[in-house]
Amino acid sequence: MSKIVYLNGKYIKYNNAKISIEDRGFQFSDSVYEVIAYKNNNFIDIKFHLRRLKYSLKELKIKYSFTYFKLEKIIKNVVLKNKLKNGLIYLQITRGVQPRNHVYKNNLKPTIIIYIIEKKFNDNLKDLKCEKAITYPDLRWSRRDIKSVSLLANIIAAKEANIKHAYEAILIKNGYVTECTASNIWIIKNSKLLTHPANSDILGGITRKRLKIIINKYKLNLIEKKFTKYELYKADEVFLTSSSSFITPIIKIDNKVIKNGKVGKITYDLAKLYNLNL
Amino acid sequence: MSKIVYLNGKYIKYNNAKISIEDRGFQFSDSVYEVIAYKNNNFIDIKFHLRRLKYSLKELKIKYSFTYFKLEKIIKNVVLKNKLKNGLIYLQITRGVQPRNHVYKNNLKPTIIIYIIEKKFNDNLKDLKCEKAITYPDLRWSRRDIKSVSLLANIIAAKEANIKHAYEAILIKNGYVTECTASNIWIIKNSKLLTHPANSDILGGITRKRLKIIINKYKLNLIEKKFTKYELYKADEVFLTSSSSFITPIIKIDNKVIKNGKVGKITYDLAKLYNLNL
Repeated sequence: MSKIVYLNGKYIKYNNAKISIEDRGFQFSDSVYEVIAYKNNNFIDIKFHLRRLKYSLKELKIKYSFTYFKLEKIIKNVVLKNKLKNGLIYLQITRGVQPRNHVYKNNLKPTIIIYIIEKKFNDNLKDLKCEKAITYPDLRWSRRDIKSVSLLANIIAAKEANIKHAYEAILIKNGYVTECTASNIWIIKNSKLLTHPANSDILGGITRKRLKIIINKYKLNLIEKKFTKYELYKADEVFLTSSSSFITPIIKIDNKVIKNGKVGKITYDLAKLYNLNL
Repeated sequence: MSKIVYLNGKYIKYNNAKISIEDRGFQFSDSVYEVIAYKNNNFIDIKFHLRRLKYSLKELKIKYSFTYFKLEKIIKNVVLKNKLKNGLIYLQITRGVQPRNHVYKNNLKPTIIIYIIEKKFNDNLKDLKCEKAITYPDLRWSRRDIKSVSLLANIIAAKEANIKHAYEAILIKNGYVTECTASNIWIIKNSKLLTHPANSDILGGITRKRLKIIINKYKLNLIEKKFTKYELYKADEVFLTSSSSFITPIIKIDNKVIKNGKVGKITYDLAKLYNLNL
């Protein structure tokens, strides 16, 4: 558990880090967030995260302005004060506090919270953990490109996966795969990689972004195009990407084993190349 | 502003009513709520509200169990302690506090908050306030029947209405009207009432429910069927219902004046009959 939390300009004890019942993040999910991995004294792709944070804030017209330099410094302070070795930085910004009203005022002072979550990563290439997933209807709202805390549809699906002893829920909208509750999904068929385009139907993941750079560099064949549940089941390889879990091979979906039920070669190679970046 | 707030079994000062940064209501909008009108020493349709609250909790598997008797007593205490004359009771229940994880634990202790918001109602029949509305895309998730705090799509639309000096935004999904950001919508054409059926596409409002009882009693012609934006513009009368605003005539939508731009007869009669109930 995080001992020191950054809350609105102050570094305070976790137990004192409380927010108002009329914070709009609490009453309207009027709030955005980022989760940044920290490993070997390094923030993984922090610039990408902060750029996406700016995008989310801009799309919701939440007026929290920051420089990368200053916010990185605060994040570093939180890491140092908590003596974090490996784990996640959780950062949440809300529109602020206001007497309850759907219509927000323009001059609110945003609430900002930064704290750390310890975590052991799935990054042992000698023993890359493979996982099972389920499929579940995508019940989310239409602006999945904004990293907001409107996550109720995600948590319903994630709980369902958990009940079925699965690692993740793959979300299906009108017969097509969008992404998962907290990861993007990729399939490989005949050595071609496929993933959903980064439009408003999915959250454009940072690990997804980094992997695209690697894929381009190594001239692998990637098509950004939505694919069906049937194509998913029939894929040669399936894997997930997320900032907190990196690359996770999926070897079983619902009751279907993917190919031979083992980590595929391309997935393994990509995990290796991604890990070089860490 | 509410002076005394009920928070997890205690009556405390508003400024001390704070919640954890890891409350799931704050991090995942994993939370439901109700807004109950209080007028002339009377809670309007409180039983209906508490029944809907039970439904929302059940659908999200949030384990807060209560008896109507006990919860009503707490609500009454909050009203008394704040010397409320006329206004709203805001009640919010979250799944509880947990180290951040999409997957919730089953044994969490829910957070409950009850406080009051003073309000003057639009219930002067001699001078019933007419309003303007805009239309806006319905960007919400698929479970609008649950009264959750996943309200980001609602507040974006409500703000847009406010910017355009309109009272409400009428939400449009695939060319059809669903409801508004915080009200249900009804149209009248050739003396027939039309409103969207109470399925998962809308929140089944309590004022909507009460009005249906009145409509049945007076044998008016109501069809629960979705209608198009075109039918909306061409209606003889349009009005909204909500627990906090009762019945609100709409006389202009976007740049279209509804009929002759005045409160319609049936709307007026219904407002009168509804007010008898208060």
